Amino acid sequence: MFTVGVIGGGQLARMMQPAAIALGVKLKVLAENENSSAHQAASMVGDYNRFEVLESFSRTVDVITFDHEHVPVEHLEKLQQAGVKINPNPAALIHAQNKLLMRKAMQRLGLPQPKWSEIRSSDDLAQFLAEHNEAVVKTPIGGYDGKGVRVIKEVEQVSDWLSQIDKFGGSLLAEQKISFTRELSQLSARSPSGSFKSWPLVQTIQSGGVCSEVIAPAPLPNKSVQSEEIAREIAFGLGVTGVMAVELFEDQNGNLLINELAMRPHNSGHFSIEGSTTSQFEQHLRAVLDLPLGETSMRQQQAVMINLLGVDDKNTFVENYPEAMAQFPEIKFHSYEKDARQGRKMGHLTLLGEDWEHLMDRGKKARDVLYAGEA
Amino acid sequence: MFTVGVIGGGQLARMMQPAAIALGVKLKVLAENENSSAHQAASMVGDYNRFEVLESFSRTVDVITFDHEHVPVEHLEKLQQAGVKINPNPAALIHAQNKLLMRKAMQRLGLPQPKWSEIRSSDDLAQFLAEHNEAVVKTPIGGYDGKGVRVIKEVEQVSDWLSQIDKFGGSLLAEQKISFTRELSQLSARSPSGSFKSWPLVQTIQSGGVCSEVIAPAPLPNKSVQSEEIAREIAFGLGVTGVMAVELFEDQNGNLLINELAMRPHNSGHFSIEGSTTSQFEQHLRAVLDLPLGETSMRQQQAVMINLLGVDDKNTFVENYPEAMAQFPEIKFHSYEKDARQGRKMGHLTLLGEDWEHLMDRGKKARDVLYAGEA
Repeated sequence: MFTVGVIGGGQLARMMQPAAIALGVKLKVLAENENSSAHQAASMVGDYNRFEVLESFSRTVDVITFDHEHVPVEHLEKLQQAGVKINPNPAALIHAQNKLLMRKAMQRLGLPQPKWSEIRSSDDLAQFLAEHNEAVVKTPIGGYDGKGVRVIKEVEQVSDWLSQIDKFGGSLLAEQKISFTRELSQLSARSPSGSFKSWPLVQTIQSGGVCSEVIAPAPLPNKSVQSEEIAREIAFGLGVTGVMAVELFEDQNGNLLINELAMRPHNSGHFSIEGSTTSQFEQHLRAVLDLPLGETSMRQQQAVMINLLGVDDKNTFVENYPEAMAQFPEIKFHSYEKDARQGRKMGHLTLLGEDWEHLMDRGKKARDVLYAGEA
Repeated sequence: MFTVGVIGGGQLARMMQPAAIALGVKLKVLAENENSSAHQAASMVGDYNRFEVLESFSRTVDVITFDHEHVPVEHLEKLQQAGVKINPNPAALIHAQNKLLMRKAMQRLGLPQPKWSEIRSSDDLAQFLAEHNEAVVKTPIGGYDGKGVRVIKEVEQVSDWLSQIDKFGGSLLAEQKISFTRELSQLSARSPSGSFKSWPLVQTIQSGGVCSEVIAPAPLPNKSVQSEEIAREIAFGLGVTGVMAVELFEDQNGNLLINELAMRPHNSGHFSIEGSTTSQFEQHLRAVLDLPLGETSMRQQQAVMINLLGVDDKNTFVENYPEAMAQFPEIKFHSYEKDARQGRKMGHLTLLGEDWEHLMDRGKKARDVLYAGEA
């Protein structure tokens, strides 16, 4: 009766499973390989770049959604024309795939963002650098977790990208480097029939371009009125369906500027599994099925989420559960059952309570214990 | 590295899945049929009454545990002798299977219970009735949710059972009928290495012998000191491993009396999925794997759990999600994906908040909306 098909078998698809099991919604996953993180729900293994694979998968489900934003949008448009329900809508999804289109859309919507320019040549980039002294250059598509992003002062630092610019659709994106006071993320969900709910604004702490910790709600100063308005404008302006994360910079003057968009459950929302009345995974299922959205209040005052990033290609931290669980009986442990690799998102920890600094301290100690064997 | 095998594919096995997915523990289920509630985790379909089936399943897992208490204990003892880890231990489990052995054990441990007698003949029962005027007669094994239980005043009311008493191992159990003020349930967990944790005592409301609602923690008067001590005595006295529910009567004088035991996650503990720092399903996995136990504090002050019992053989209530979710955005909906049957446990609702009466009122209204189409 309700069968959701997820393209991609990563940890986001994996974490949709508990929500689907609770609701009695069927979840089918098109996984990249047999040993995906979401292997238990994988009903098909295949290449999401091949139209025939997507088409055959789509025939087994009521609606298609995503674990990642790498599915070719032209395939999705073709499926949609053939009557397949896809949430988020490809016309919206393209803005999470292509950072240049996203910047243009934010400008059209009049929303706050860093100064930016479309770069078609070395001259374009030289001019941007002359104006801004420094630039964050991004490949429009394919980047994530710091990949496809370089902070430069000289054109030559991206000469390899410029020399093969056709590979990136003929353009790069240059953005002003923001000296931010903190990074924030506004999670929300919108359903096809137009319901909208947002979670409290959270602070994200990055390390080497990868999210390391999240504090929910973000400590003061409170910027949630502004951030929720931004999320709402984007969700309705682009017709986004499902969960969306708007990553934001807060600059020295306290202004919020849009950094990136994701149209799926997001690392900054993992706290919601235990921390919110409705988790981002449950909400995403409700939204893509066009069911009414759930309440997004905090279960306890504060939540801290700590990512478990691979330290090498052996340690999976699960072997240190006995010691960590004994010392931290209040912590919720999450493992994604992924092969270990340095820097890879392998799992996370969640702590709920009243004082985020205390939770952060406990969580980091637990992370140390989990990786103690390999420190 | 940690593979738990569950015998039985009912909703309890189903609800172990989200906990296993979070922890990165592997869960394999020996299901009765292809369409079991826990079908997604079913690695084998077979008859748990056949030793060869159990043996073959046991070779694929690190430890065996249960969705129900119907597995022949002689098979389990044989497996244990062959080196298979089984939690709960068959020597303990027998007390959850056989109500007569349970009464004898509680007596040995000096724990409070209704007056009772082993009934081998009509004369035995006539004598018990002469002393107590009324009796609750139970078949020692095989009963659940009110089945295998009769409240009688005349021997003839169980003449069918007496005439085939060999089928019940030669004895029936007669218990004094307690005029209780309320029914309570004390949930706890013990690990093989001897850690013990208990959840707050809860009140259970029964309807026609089946649990209908649960209030956690139980409203005043507070009996948790007594109930936790009873659970601890049983857990250590019998060497119980895993989650255990002790169902209790509170009599007119405020005394607690042991009604029944279950050695597995229990309907009275479903509130803990959202309501407790550690759910009964996660705790059961931790306990059977001999991992340290998690904290059992309430996430919010009160929780109310409402069972969704089948109203007929068609309605599965999931079709009424749109209306119910729109009216009750704060409620957590659980469906077990079972074929509808009147009186069958099909799912449940959980509400968290400050005032259980308000939660109960909202939850019952939501149940009505879910079944509105069939009322």
